[in-house]
Amino acid sequence: MSQDTPLVARLSTRDADFESRLTDLLAWEGVSDHGVQQAVSEIISQVRREGDAALVALTCRLDRLEASSMADLTLGADRLEAAYAALPDDQRQALATAAERIRVYHERQKPTSWQYTEDDGTVLGQKVTPLDRAGIYVPGGKAAYPSSVLMNAVPAHVAGVREIIMVVPTPDGVVNDLVLAAAHLAGVDKVFTLGGAQAVAALAYGTESVPRVDKIVGPGNIYVATAKRAVFGQVGIDMIAGPSEILVVSDGQTDPDWLAMDLFSQAEHDEDAQAILVSWDVEHLAAVEASMERLLPTLEREAIAGASLRTRGALIACRDEGEALELINRIAPEHLELSVEHPERLAEQVRHAGAIFMGRHTAEALGDYCAGPNHVLPTSGTARFSSPLGVYDFQKRSSIIHCSPQGASTLGKTASVLARGESLTAHARSAEYRIKD
Amino acid sequence: MSQDTPLVARLSTRDADFESRLTDLLAWEGVSDHGVQQAVSEIISQVRREGDAALVALTCRLDRLEASSMADLTLGADRLEAAYAALPDDQRQALATAAERIRVYHERQKPTSWQYTEDDGTVLGQKVTPLDRAGIYVPGGKAAYPSSVLMNAVPAHVAGVREIIMVVPTPDGVVNDLVLAAAHLAGVDKVFTLGGAQAVAALAYGTESVPRVDKIVGPGNIYVATAKRAVFGQVGIDMIAGPSEILVVSDGQTDPDWLAMDLFSQAEHDEDAQAILVSWDVEHLAAVEASMERLLPTLEREAIAGASLRTRGALIACRDEGEALELINRIAPEHLELSVEHPERLAEQVRHAGAIFMGRHTAEALGDYCAGPNHVLPTSGTARFSSPLGVYDFQKRSSIIHCSPQGASTLGKTASVLARGESLTAHARSAEYRIKD
Repeated sequence: MSQDTPLVARLSTRDADFESRLTDLLAWEGVSDHGVQQAVSEIISQVRREGDAALVALTCRLDRLEASSMADLTLGADRLEAAYAALPDDQRQALATAAERIRVYHERQKPTSWQYTEDDGTVLGQKVTPLDRAGIYVPGGKAAYPSSVLMNAVPAHVAGVREIIMVVPTPDGVVNDLVLAAAHLAGVDKVFTLGGAQAVAALAYGTESVPRVDKIVGPGNIYVATAKRAVFGQVGIDMIAGPSEILVVSDGQTDPDWLAMDLFSQAEHDEDAQAILVSWDVEHLAAVEASMERLLPTLEREAIAGASLRTRGALIACRDEGEALELINRIAPEHLELSVEHPERLAEQVRHAGAIFMGRHTAEALGDYCAGPNHVLPTSGTARFSSPLGVYDFQKRSSIIHCSPQGASTLGKTASVLARGESLTAHARSAEYRIKD
Repeated sequence: MSQDTPLVARLSTRDADFESRLTDLLAWEGVSDHGVQQAVSEIISQVRREGDAALVALTCRLDRLEASSMADLTLGADRLEAAYAALPDDQRQALATAAERIRVYHERQKPTSWQYTEDDGTVLGQKVTPLDRAGIYVPGGKAAYPSSVLMNAVPAHVAGVREIIMVVPTPDGVVNDLVLAAAHLAGVDKVFTLGGAQAVAALAYGTESVPRVDKIVGPGNIYVATAKRAVFGQVGIDMIAGPSEILVVSDGQTDPDWLAMDLFSQAEHDEDAQAILVSWDVEHLAAVEASMERLLPTLEREAIAGASLRTRGALIACRDEGEALELINRIAPEHLELSVEHPERLAEQVRHAGAIFMGRHTAEALGDYCAGPNHVLPTSGTARFSSPLGVYDFQKRSSIIHCSPQGASTLGKTASVLARGESLTAHARSAEYRIKD
């Protein structure tokens, strides 16, 4: 690297233009332009109109396959099982270990139904039920991650979803056997080798072969994201994911090589990924930068990681832990690594983060694969209002109201006054019929 | 009514065309046409570009006000308190009773943070935190409901949201004092008299006067719904609501007048509202129909209720309780009234419903105002995958991962295998640094 183009931007909270530079650094809007919207809208219409025939035609054209019917785009349970059986021992074992740890963690998320009885015998409560059917979108090609299959399907299973449908595109016929093996392990019921907006449309509306699901989860490209936004309401969707990011806070005592590699592990995802390190130890920041310069050329994915760091990475010098905390809550990072001596103290004051990796030993990569918590996390500051994918995403609640005759009489009086205040007199009269005297 | 145009459609599960008639009856798609999308997109751009100035200009034009600055579109705490103090005693008391019951019910929804420690000292958990700031959209004009203010703001308060911002349009300067009184009671912090897409844009992006919120909840017209869909991702949103609907299941033993009025209480909301009665007692269905014919002319909102029933209402004769149950789970109603002798038995098998009103005494109207559970419920079959508005809508979760040195070493081995399987070698090396030997 030349001196003029540093690998990664250096910012300081002391700089006069810090606020505007930070804003620019974080700026991200996954806007789909008019052309994409138009294309997606047409694909959805075509799938709704023509069903399977549209799926076959679109998949042949867009994924360059030669399929003559949906049978060519369907993978049976035997195919998934064969993929699992054919895995090398170490991979099969690692996948099974990860699946089991993910299952155990997500079991803790299961909410329970509850109810309580009031003095007059009226019962109020909340009933929790699973979705009937969930659809999981798994990207194809180089971004096909077996770990994502586990992270999406295992919580659905734990929630009690009756049927889990997976779609995964196989452009040019390239099938990822690790993905199929993970689907087998996670209990996916059916797999269709579909992708793009057509896969989303099929899951949302159903076709002759693809059953309509109740919710679609999983990441995808801009066509997939645009299609998910368009079918939202017809089905549930998870968040529309932006590029992955990490914010590492270091107290200066963690090995700079460790931190460099932690930042790389984010940056290697794709050119738009974002890796930021914050510390109040300026010499430490320089040491991490030196590690990064030295280690970057040793990466298999040097080009991607380098592009990500040059355009979206940053080393931020702050005054103290308090300022670091302000930055955390301002950024609301997807991944937050607290590489400090006493992470509990800091974590307590973190208001917004997808996942918090505490202490020097908790590399973010451990959470990506096998720690147990979900790796599908809110990106681009959406941790301000959303949560990791979880069992709760595959369940919903129904309110329970069972009034005793006395309860209905008492409540009826209040309801009547309020309904008449809103000029909804049929509401009032419906309540008044249940008033006793 | 003439014999040729019955007040409400009669269907029977025995009819050959039942399935297609039911599908037509339930069909609803809240599509916003290209013109609406275009208008909303321009309003959002204008508000982002010009801030307060855009809000003042748009509100003057669209709501026919004469405002010269945001000060004219802001209501202070004193104004809300004055509205509350000026209420007639019975209304103030009814509103306070409702607010307290809603609060008590929603307190039960509060989830707690949790964590557990594994044998090697690794800690895993989930931390629950409230949103910093919530925005509540309250429709103006005839659909301005103080009960909706309570139902949206109280759960936000219970969740621990720091600041609750309310927007409510005042077309032609008409202010609804009951709405302001409810806002005072529910602890709303600030009120802006804004509506439409401009209000949604202001809450999503912030202006000089309107603070940016983290989530926008509350119903609105097609412009509001389209704007909410557009800003989803920038902020969280609740469901995009369709017209309100009720499914009543009667065993034939409930007073037909009661059921007629329960159906009217849904139909009087608006012409698109949907009221359906299902029973296996055909004579009872005829009796309810007769009650409806007789009582409809006595309604203040006869025209609206009549239009709703004629276009979207139905009386469905089914064979038995089992078929009624199938219909319930097929329809996934927003409101389900089980007007039967033993509602528990039926309720147990209900998989999809926003709220279940059990027994003859539990009029749906009681739930609208003061039973305690939320009246913001999933419409148009979205109870298949979504829940009543609740405390959980104003909170989010962060995963906690704190690996002990031993835990990081063990997990690192699994993560390394899986990361290499995905060709993410920086991930692998980041994990491997933490392997002990």
